[in-house]
Amino acid sequence: MIEVALFGAGRIGKIHAANLAAQPGVQFKYVVDVNQEAAAALAGLHGGSSATVETALADPAIKAVVIASSTDTHADLILRSAAAGKAIFCEKPVDLTIDRARACAAAVKEAKVLCMLGFQRRYDPTFNAVKTRLEAGEIGTPELLVVTSRDPGPPPVSYIKVSGGIFKDMLIHDFDIFRWILDDEAVSVHATGSCLVDPAIGEAGDLDTAVVTIRTAKGRLCQINASRRAAYGYDQRFEVLGSAGMLQAGNHKPTEVTAYGSANVSVDKPEDFFLERYRVAYAQEMAHFFDALSHGTPLRTTVHDGLKALELAEAATLSWREQRVVTL
Amino acid sequence: MIEVALFGAGRIGKIHAANLAAQPGVQFKYVVDVNQEAAAALAGLHGGSSATVETALADPAIKAVVIASSTDTHADLILRSAAAGKAIFCEKPVDLTIDRARACAAAVKEAKVLCMLGFQRRYDPTFNAVKTRLEAGEIGTPELLVVTSRDPGPPPVSYIKVSGGIFKDMLIHDFDIFRWILDDEAVSVHATGSCLVDPAIGEAGDLDTAVVTIRTAKGRLCQINASRRAAYGYDQRFEVLGSAGMLQAGNHKPTEVTAYGSANVSVDKPEDFFLERYRVAYAQEMAHFFDALSHGTPLRTTVHDGLKALELAEAATLSWREQRVVTL
Amino acid sequence: MIEVALFGAGRIGKIHAANLAAQPGVQFKYVVDVNQEAAAALAGLHGGSSATVETALADPAIKAVVIASSTDTHADLILRSAAAGKAIFCEKPVDLTIDRARACAAAVKEAKVLCMLGFQRRYDPTFNAVKTRLEAGEIGTPELLVVTSRDPGPPPVSYIKVSGGIFKDMLIHDFDIFRWILDDEAVSVHATGSCLVDPAIGEAGDLDTAVVTIRTAKGRLCQINASRRAAYGYDQRFEVLGSAGMLQAGNHKPTEVTAYGSANVSVDKPEDFFLERYRVAYAQEMAHFFDALSHGTPLRTTVHDGLKALELAEAATLSWREQRVVTL
Amino acid sequence: MIEVALFGAGRIGKIHAANLAAQPGVQFKYVVDVNQEAAAALAGLHGGSSATVETALADPAIKAVVIASSTDTHADLILRSAAAGKAIFCEKPVDLTIDRARACAAAVKEAKVLCMLGFQRRYDPTFNAVKTRLEAGEIGTPELLVVTSRDPGPPPVSYIKVSGGIFKDMLIHDFDIFRWILDDEAVSVHATGSCLVDPAIGEAGDLDTAVVTIRTAKGRLCQINASRRAAYGYDQRFEVLGSAGMLQAGNHKPTEVTAYGSANVSVDKPEDFFLERYRVAYAQEMAHFFDALSHGTPLRTTVHDGLKALELAEAATLSWREQRVVTL
Repeated sequence: MIEVALFGAGRIGKIHAANLAAQPGVQFKYVVDVNQEAAAALAGLHGGSSATVETALADPAIKAVVIASSTDTHADLILRSAAAGKAIFCEKPVDLTIDRARACAAAVKEAKVLCMLGFQRRYDPTFNAVKTRLEAGEIGTPELLVVTSRDPGPPPVSYIKVSGGIFKDMLIHDFDIFRWILDDEAVSVHATGSCLVDPAIGEAGDLDTAVVTIRTAKGRLCQINASRRAAYGYDQRFEVLGSAGMLQAGNHKPTEVTAYGSANVSVDKPEDFFLERYRVAYAQEMAHFFDALSHGTPLRTTVHDGLKALELAEAATLSWREQRVVTL
Repeated sequence: MIEVALFGAGRIGKIHAANLAAQPGVQFKYVVDVNQEAAAALAGLHGGSSATVETALADPAIKAVVIASSTDTHADLILRSAAAGKAIFCEKPVDLTIDRARACAAAVKEAKVLCMLGFQRRYDPTFNAVKTRLEAGEIGTPELLVVTSRDPGPPPVSYIKVSGGIFKDMLIHDFDIFRWILDDEAVSVHATGSCLVDPAIGEAGDLDTAVVTIRTAKGRLCQINASRRAAYGYDQRFEVLGSAGMLQAGNHKPTEVTAYGSANVSVDKPEDFFLERYRVAYAQEMAHFFDALSHGTPLRTTVHDGLKALELAEAATLSWREQRVVTL
Repeated sequence: MIEVALFGAGRIGKIHAANLAAQPGVQFKYVVDVNQEAAAALAGLHGGSSATVETALADPAIKAVVIASSTDTHADLILRSAAAGKAIFCEKPVDLTIDRARACAAAVKEAKVLCMLGFQRRYDPTFNAVKTRLEAGEIGTPELLVVTSRDPGPPPVSYIKVSGGIFKDMLIHDFDIFRWILDDEAVSVHATGSCLVDPAIGEAGDLDTAVVTIRTAKGRLCQINASRRAAYGYDQRFEVLGSAGMLQAGNHKPTEVTAYGSANVSVDKPEDFFLERYRVAYAQEMAHFFDALSHGTPLRTTVHDGLKALELAEAATLSWREQRVVTL
Repeated sequence: MIEVALFGAGRIGKIHAANLAAQPGVQFKYVVDVNQEAAAALAGLHGGSSATVETALADPAIKAVVIASSTDTHADLILRSAAAGKAIFCEKPVDLTIDRARACAAAVKEAKVLCMLGFQRRYDPTFNAVKTRLEAGEIGTPELLVVTSRDPGPPPVSYIKVSGGIFKDMLIHDFDIFRWILDDEAVSVHATGSCLVDPAIGEAGDLDTAVVTIRTAKGRLCQINASRRAAYGYDQRFEVLGSAGMLQAGNHKPTEVTAYGSANVSVDKPEDFFLERYRVAYAQEMAHFFDALSHGTPLRTTVHDGLKALELAEAATLSWREQRVVTL
């Protein structure tokens, strides 16, 4: 049995808690949250107990930690967990600053502990199938990637203010998809955007609609379009054009009902938001983490990937602010 | 905690075992199977133990049983479980003979125990959404139902011989869908078919391709087309034409990848077979059973539904054999 | 130049007139209609003149006639045109009675004139592609055909009364599709139906919703479902299950717009009705007729096909009326 | 009768010739081409005759000209036709240089003649339906446009060399779509690209894969992705995200057949190339031109639109060459 501590009892913490509980060979021992009531409630649901960071990290039985607390605590928890020799699963992002993210990468390396970053999209069945088929050469050499990334609606402006901005908060996932799918690194980034959804987002110094263009070392191209609002649900698609064809990853929807009416023929909207859309991906990534821990299989998403995505987010932010192409 | 015994450690027994284990408030106590090794292995996976029918039914802590053993044991286990005062979840069919199915219905009524029949399709998200939207009046009055029911490939002829024939073994589900969706009872049935997939099925006295037409008391119409073989996977669709539109329940598929190649544009085939296609439905039906047990909510699929579906299967068999329309 | 006379200046006559006018090597000379004003107007549009049947058939320059007048005039015009040695294109049906249809077939044979029947669906690009791919063996041996045939709304009851009934008036096309696609002849027919759309149709002795099952000499099966009303437009689909796969012919729609809204994701309804849906098919069948006339290529749809479809319509009518399976 | 002269008897000239011939109230009189044999053949097909530019423009009966000759002749023919007082339909582009395009615009204004530019996509039923629904407010305020523009394969390098480059030759259409759909003008353009399809294209100083980002005066955003090669056919899509939803214009395909096989479920590839894809659009734009000529209705695509699209193409070319954002 691998005993595990979970940091964070919020929305995403609950998802991970349920997946931890369902993991064969894993015992879900502690939940740590500043809201101790929430921690105790979540722990109780799955047979664990509430604890402090100190207790959790001091317990030698704890082999692994899952960090799902607020973004500003990630780096600190990674550093402390690494120092305590725990295997680490951390939600994205590593941190909002590159320096601290680099420090985490260094600490993890130094401590020789596993550190997996929760880029859950790489574990989604649809996205994964595209990757597998790409690698099998089904569409020849990839040339062009178009990513569509739209949230159903914007978060509260209070969140926007501490989010690090749309590129670090929202497109960080898309930057990771870009690196994974095109299997190449960026050499230049252009980003621009507008505030079309809510002027308060603009007043907070952020964008709500953003478009990014990336050119890679091999001359491959990527376009990302993102919005904080899609009236029709959570829109998560990408398509890769290759020399011999194209692969598209489409949205998932709740049911396969088609309705023929006097006005039109309709199907369900996409899934509401990430908890629904990536339900299977969250389960799969946790299984992957414990596979790696138990069998030494390589991690698919590491703190290095988090760092690279963060660099792209920084470059995009700079490009937007200075209205120029940024070279990496 | 509701303690439960499971009869049957085969393919479908394993599905139910996992769903029982994940059911909050339920303790999975015994597995009974003629293959005691299989029973012990399955029990071990989920923290229960292997037992005999007698032990399981004699244990007063057991409040409910799940019957997932071979068809020929269903009626006997229903009768014994009812006599022991257990709530019963039984896989379809109740029995292959109407007399014994009626005896089960009577015994259950007499014993005043819950008896749910495992017509899992009624718990599928897509099928359920059609039913809900029908009831909401979205397409007016239903008039015509077309059901497509095709297995990926035929079972072994040894199974065909004890299956009760294609109408009782395979279309029994479609007869239930017919009753549920059109919300009416049959007044006449016409069935015919052929042996086009494997002559050995014909030699065993059965069909492998069958078409059925049903007319209801309200004049509504239903056509079912079924085959033991669909080269492209498990094909489970239906569509209801109503006075104001149409609703279609389509197949589910593993991923939402679309591939554009030099030959065509393609998507995934439907899910392989019932274990994949109805994965969610199997979980939902088990939750429904324990909801009914805990909260007294009415069962959606009872032994009565099993009996009515069986009557339709008998009528269809007769229609086919005598090449005539059978009036009910 | 092949000079041609057109009988009938109504809805379908106008379609054929435009296609005749666009036919290279064809001169559109006469239009004949009891409504002489309509005839003159249509003739004027395309550079011909109004005429009587006698004039048209007596003109030796006329090599071909197109019969698009009302159903009750078809047989007489076929007989007279055949006697006059003209090549004949006749709208379906040949006649509402088998005897007269047979007389037409005999007269055509005797006169050794071409006589093409306007089963335009066989010339539709989608339907044709299915046929071509079937013949290429793409899905192995065909086993089961499901035909969906629904009009957007019923015709006036006055028309219903002279239509010959739903089987001869509407399903005649589907019976032809059945023969063409399964490439086999019927051995038994079962039909039933209801009057669910408009009670006046029932009072006129007809059905508005009908289902037919056909079994062929080779044991292949066909189910047809038909309604005089589909709230969502003209529904014209079929699917063929074969030993190695399935081919579906789907509806056509006016545009390829997809709309994502807060309620659902929608596309256009199918084309409104046959004039829109089979626009290309009507052009293609006329080209086929003149190809046959000019180059002696065999006709794809002859008076024989009209006769066979009529026999199926009669059998279906009998099956419905007598509530029994009819053997052919 | 409006008498018309056609300049150019090549691929696109033939399309226009057939549409001219089918235009009611239009007489197709002259075809002018440096290849007099081709001109005579095309003229013969539709009842006109071969002529020189001088003859055609000197004939006072000629009210309109259709310019479908090679790009380098457009400006000269516009200037001479305007001077001769003819209404002008000209294929895109006006010219490859902005100065000459401006001179054309000025000449047309001066001569007070109609001058329609053949941006045929605006007349396509699918694209038009999106525009109409946008204007009806179906998705609120448009915010983001994503355009996919991919040819099935590259033209010969000899053509590339005189084409003006990918932005003027190929994306010119997309720049027009951008202006039409977002109903706004560009304030900045960023473009980049690669040579991934054929190195010879790069040696000719051009790109074969290009991506463009445009920001408008109202802060709306547009991303265009283009390639000279799509192994799966001609890919012509766009989608507009608005405050209340999204509208997508999808590809058209030859038939509505769906094939279910042991490997996947497939449909037809998109139409092969522009002649097939925009067949209806070419007919509609010609009807629009003669409507304007006969009834004074405003032209939807003028030389001004050609000029604005050309400016965008120049800006994109500059952005690519200088690797910077270009402000307009």
